[in-house]
Amino acid sequence: MSELLSEVRELDAADPLAGTRERFVLDDTVYLDGNSLGALPAHVPGAVEDVVRRQWGELRIRSWTESGWWTAPERVGDRIAPLVGAAPGQVVVGDSTSVNVFKAVVAAVRMAGEGRDEILVDASTFPTDGYVAESAARLTGCALRAVAPAEVPAALGARTAAVLLNHVDYRTGRLHDLPALTAAVHAAGAYAVWDLCHSAGALPVGLDRHGVDLAVGCTYKYLNGGPGSPAYLYVRRDLQDRFDSPLPGWNSHAEPFGMTAGYTPAAGAVRGRVGTPDILSLLALEAALDVWEGVEVAAVRAKSLALTDFFLRCVGEYLPAGRVESLTPVPHAERGSQVALRCADAGEVMKALIGRGVVGDFRAPDVLRFGFTPLYVGFADVERAARVLGEVVTERGCPHPA
Amino acid sequence: MSELLSEVRELDAADPLAGTRERFVLDDTVYLDGNSLGALPAHVPGAVEDVVRRQWGELRIRSWTESGWWTAPERVGDRIAPLVGAAPGQVVVGDSTSVNVFKAVVAAVRMAGEGRDEILVDASTFPTDGYVAESAARLTGCALRAVAPAEVPAALGARTAAVLLNHVDYRTGRLHDLPALTAAVHAAGAYAVWDLCHSAGALPVGLDRHGVDLAVGCTYKYLNGGPGSPAYLYVRRDLQDRFDSPLPGWNSHAEPFGMTAGYTPAAGAVRGRVGTPDILSLLALEAALDVWEGVEVAAVRAKSLALTDFFLRCVGEYLPAGRVESLTPVPHAERGSQVALRCADAGEVMKALIGRGVVGDFRAPDVLRFGFTPLYVGFADVERAARVLGEVVTERGCPHPA
Repeated sequence: MSELLSEVRELDAADPLAGTRERFVLDDTVYLDGNSLGALPAHVPGAVEDVVRRQWGELRIRSWTESGWWTAPERVGDRIAPLVGAAPGQVVVGDSTSVNVFKAVVAAVRMAGEGRDEILVDASTFPTDGYVAESAARLTGCALRAVAPAEVPAALGARTAAVLLNHVDYRTGRLHDLPALTAAVHAAGAYAVWDLCHSAGALPVGLDRHGVDLAVGCTYKYLNGGPGSPAYLYVRRDLQDRFDSPLPGWNSHAEPFGMTAGYTPAAGAVRGRVGTPDILSLLALEAALDVWEGVEVAAVRAKSLALTDFFLRCVGEYLPAGRVESLTPVPHAERGSQVALRCADAGEVMKALIGRGVVGDFRAPDVLRFGFTPLYVGFADVERAARVLGEVVTERGCPHPA
Repeated sequence: MSELLSEVRELDAADPLAGTRERFVLDDTVYLDGNSLGALPAHVPGAVEDVVRRQWGELRIRSWTESGWWTAPERVGDRIAPLVGAAPGQVVVGDSTSVNVFKAVVAAVRMAGEGRDEILVDASTFPTDGYVAESAARLTGCALRAVAPAEVPAALGARTAAVLLNHVDYRTGRLHDLPALTAAVHAAGAYAVWDLCHSAGALPVGLDRHGVDLAVGCTYKYLNGGPGSPAYLYVRRDLQDRFDSPLPGWNSHAEPFGMTAGYTPAAGAVRGRVGTPDILSLLALEAALDVWEGVEVAAVRAKSLALTDFFLRCVGEYLPAGRVESLTPVPHAERGSQVALRCADAGEVMKALIGRGVVGDFRAPDVLRFGFTPLYVGFADVERAARVLGEVVTERGCPHPA
């Protein structure tokens, strides 16, 4: 144990991102649930107070122009863009991830055109993507087929219109091969829609570089936007004129205040907007994005891998052999920014961990999930989490099979 | 002028709702734009600060259960329900009005079933409803026909699946006959979807009493929820089992944390949920609804009509005859809570008015729109608004035709 502890001190001392922890409100718990809800950036409460008291309370309706409310969806989108490898003008913020999945999948099917009537969906997807893809399929007259990401290349065909994939598996933390899978989808003449919920802000995505067609993601995990903060939609620039939204709300109109009966879509990413943007949450998110000032995603990725490597090592040291099974791939190229450990009594173990100040989460039926947010998690946190986990499972003894 | 001024004093002194003004943050402007963005309730900043600093910042992920985040959409829905005449369990809050229009119209078409393939939409609707209804029609294989609300009874037929109507016309302030039109829609075997954006919180709606099938509305006008606060969806209790959402996100699943690949809809209003709720905005709205404590909608309606009556009288006294034309119906049964005045130079007139502390809004090409929120607008405000309007138009002289 002492060897790991001295290593912790060296790792934390050498961490180029150690300073960003001060940008967040943290306490003495080890918070490894930033892949569910990111911690509060320290300056967000003041920013929100200004939005509420001054922008809404004093300026009221004038804030739509004077406080930049009206253009916030695309402005905040441009703040997210560099984090997912997108040039400006391709990301718009608003609605939930589920609603953006719907827009993206229906739009992809429409781009694919006649004769392509099948949608492939990641068989291990976070459930909402599957439910919404099924609805999109039903409404566009397509068949829906669930396929493991690795099997996608073999499943693609002349009928494939769109493929909806998760960049990182929410349960296991597995990172899928976005460049290769996107290329395979394109080779089949289909459109790739990526869900970045568990990758954006944790690792390089490279949307532009890899020619991704459409992407969606939430902002309350590694982007720390706050509970239920609005999601985003990426539409590659050269596809924007063909982006035919199934939710053509007035905010996506070329001239929204013209109040015309006929719909003419706006140009650019704005076309992905729907209704009036949710200003409180959107501007809380905008403020939250300030924590990325001076931070390179490559550095975040390097630290993320170091953290998860170190966690797996500590788990190996502190836990009885075979007590938990890691579901997270060992190769870096296949790992996101989380570690998922399976054990029969995961629900009880997580309760005990939280009671001792180590917060991860439990995913039924048997998974302990630990998310590592490099901007505020350090190596001492990682060591402590594994050590407390070791204590908990040792005290509990062998679990009864679930 | 002095006669109106002494009447103002009597009217304000006798106003049973005069005390609710203190529940809002107001200044010395006359704010007649609450039909666009409601004023800030005084206790909302403190409530939002608690959500941000304590619930998010300290409790973090625990707030999903401990701070009641997870159940907020239906809990806040039940707070709105009495304001629109709905028993509990039928209103759920989330997403924008546009997105809820989409859910409601597609669900209505599916309820109507085979053989009914036409959607009627209010020809004078706020544009987003028309755009979204067109999308819903396209995706469900229906035709869409725009019909003036008064012509709806004659337009209904055996093919009609759903009818989407605005309760109050956003531009003119005309109140449509919800009971009679709903009855006509039902007599034709179709489903009625009402948009309550400009009526909820300003006048009795009576959703349950009049047997409305589905309804949607925003919360940032007369409900004072804040800029872009989430909208709501009403699904009549006996239709909920047949509510087949086109946006079946994981929050509408019977067992959302079961994370199952197959979709099983939840029972009740929860079925109208989609993705993760936008907590900051949703809880700001929840706090904002406290201003309704002890307030009867009937009293709000009585004051609203007294305010608009008095405004029209003052306009008649203070403005040169024929300088403006009122688009708002004189009969109370046809009037919402706003007055729309048409004049060729409306854009310039509104700028001048705002410069003199009277805030309404301008709707292209030639409409001055004044909204009257009985909870914080008094008769002195009304008199002053008309008086300043009289000064502005008198100084400007006869407008050049637009």
